[in-house]
Amino acid sequence: MVDGPTLALDAMGGDHAPGIVVRGADIALARMPDLKLILVGDEAQLRPLIENTKRLANSDFKLIHTDKAVGASEKPSVALRSGRNSSMRLAINQVADGEADGVVSAGNTGALMAMSKFVLRMCPGIERPAIASFFPTRRGETCMLDLGANVDCDSENLVQFALMGEIFSRMVLGLSRPKVGLLNVGSEEQKGSDAVRGAAAVLRETESENFEYVGFVEGDDITAGTVDVIVTDGFSGNIALKTAEGTSRMITQFLRDAFKSSWAARLGYLLCRGALEQMRKRLDPRRYNGAVFLGLNGISVKSHGGTDALGFANAVCVAADMCRYGFLEKVKEEIALYGDSSGANLTRQTSVAS
Amino acid sequence: MVDGPTLALDAMGGDHAPGIVVRGADIALARMPDLKLILVGDEAQLRPLIENTKRLANSDFKLIHTDKAVGASEKPSVALRSGRNSSMRLAINQVADGEADGVVSAGNTGALMAMSKFVLRMCPGIERPAIASFFPTRRGETCMLDLGANVDCDSENLVQFALMGEIFSRMVLGLSRPKVGLLNVGSEEQKGSDAVRGAAAVLRETESENFEYVGFVEGDDITAGTVDVIVTDGFSGNIALKTAEGTSRMITQFLRDAFKSSWAARLGYLLCRGALEQMRKRLDPRRYNGAVFLGLNGISVKSHGGTDALGFANAVCVAADMCRYGFLEKVKEEIALYGDSSGANLTRQTSVAS
Repeated sequence: MVDGPTLALDAMGGDHAPGIVVRGADIALARMPDLKLILVGDEAQLRPLIENTKRLANSDFKLIHTDKAVGASEKPSVALRSGRNSSMRLAINQVADGEADGVVSAGNTGALMAMSKFVLRMCPGIERPAIASFFPTRRGETCMLDLGANVDCDSENLVQFALMGEIFSRMVLGLSRPKVGLLNVGSEEQKGSDAVRGAAAVLRETESENFEYVGFVEGDDITAGTVDVIVTDGFSGNIALKTAEGTSRMITQFLRDAFKSSWAARLGYLLCRGALEQMRKRLDPRRYNGAVFLGLNGISVKSHGGTDALGFANAVCVAADMCRYGFLEKVKEEIALYGDSSGANLTRQTSVAS
Repeated sequence: MVDGPTLALDAMGGDHAPGIVVRGADIALARMPDLKLILVGDEAQLRPLIENTKRLANSDFKLIHTDKAVGASEKPSVALRSGRNSSMRLAINQVADGEADGVVSAGNTGALMAMSKFVLRMCPGIERPAIASFFPTRRGETCMLDLGANVDCDSENLVQFALMGEIFSRMVLGLSRPKVGLLNVGSEEQKGSDAVRGAAAVLRETESENFEYVGFVEGDDITAGTVDVIVTDGFSGNIALKTAEGTSRMITQFLRDAFKSSWAARLGYLLCRGALEQMRKRLDPRRYNGAVFLGLNGISVKSHGGTDALGFANAVCVAADMCRYGFLEKVKEEIALYGDSSGANLTRQTSVAS
């Protein structure tokens, strides 16, 4: 049982930490008994919680004590300067020091990104990191990136996101040749910003056996499941993510109101409840928990701040899968093959290769 | 009955034209009997349809014949060059010629925007047009702009959109001092692109009795109804709009699947049907039909291409309301008051005024 990946968990990050982190770690161990976990946080709080667990308490875990945590609304720059002994920072350090293969935190996203980038550095050849996550779609799941790491992206960034996204989706969805689309305001070639059109020009010319570039997609393609990977800048991606979440919440509230609006509806709801529960599961944000920071020279996974133990466990398992799959090595290989940090290189080298 | 606005309708635009245009016109007349309508399209197709209507047939309508129409997928530049005798162009010309107070079309959005801009020109002081529409929210309705007229917007454009949006929302929602927010990836001051932060700096300094600038809002605020007017560039706005539509469609499909998944669920559905119908109405895109082109020197309203007669009638009524309300005059007044085309002017003049 020592072959599995070792993961450092920021036990103090997130709205319901450290409880959900400890219970989440326990759930993750039930699914992946070969995991080795390092919990970083306040020992006085963590010990009793761990004693209450079935598997974690009896596993070969490690506890690193600190009573410092990064605040949920702390500015990334402040966290970076003054959070050197925070649970988040010490957990990331474990990866940099070679003690862990990856880090998971439900804490402050901006701080986690800033610290991960500072401590782990960028993956050689990648210019900007991207936040990637999965969306439920009418056909299954779609990976989208960037969800907010970079407000401004140029065409080179978008091309690199496409490469990282297809590798990530091959890993998570088990697809052999995922379809990749660029998010735009129309499907015609002349539409969109310079960055989007520039990235399209490069991707159109790319012939890779690893992915298929299908062109521009629009906002409604995200949930339609038209493609497996949707590439966009962090501004639009973040707005699309939150718009989808908001719309989903609004419809859920409207549904709840409808089911309460009459006695017939209340009775009807009781009859539908099992079926609606299935639907709720299809949309369950915990299933899609774990926004992954791609492009760093190390595995860093962000769990949703408000998630529960199950959601946190899913984020832990995503990080474990990335380690097992050799995600970093695959990104380095493709970047070396298709061009280091230049879209022009990508075109040239794939043209020769194809 | 000659006091109402005169509207020119592109009778050949949209997926189900001319049927929905004629029936939509008839519904609009039932609501607003003082409207005067000019239908532009193929007389041979229109005459029998009009004869089947109750009110339109007996109203003081005008018919302008043309057998040319702009194709749904025609490029705006091509439509502009070769569509001089199209129903869309001739309908817009009616406004420019002073024969109509506004134009409504369910045809090709890009072509309608290009032609409207070319024929009607920009409203003095406004630099770029914006597409505005309403979203259903948990609290009511929110106006969002730009939904796709401009891929790149600078801070000045965004400030002008804010002014046009608050006037439009005061008109449609009847609010005395609507809340205005700028769409961003976070609510902190340092977040976002230069354009968004620049617009925020100007709006923060603006003290107007007509609207309240509340700061940055995020994607999930659109449906939460946090503000009355959401201002963004056409790229993010279009993606947010389509993401919301797609999410809504996905959940509707999941619901349909759930209600069909067992006999208990089918029975439950029958009991809930009335209540769900109420919910469907709350979300009905036809209620929010009518994307308005703001910033032009004339009233031009785009109906959804796939809408039915009821949706088209709503778009006609929005155009009629804008004419009655004196929308163009109000925009001109505010732009003159708060600064012509410069955010700096806006700040300076309102500081003096406040």
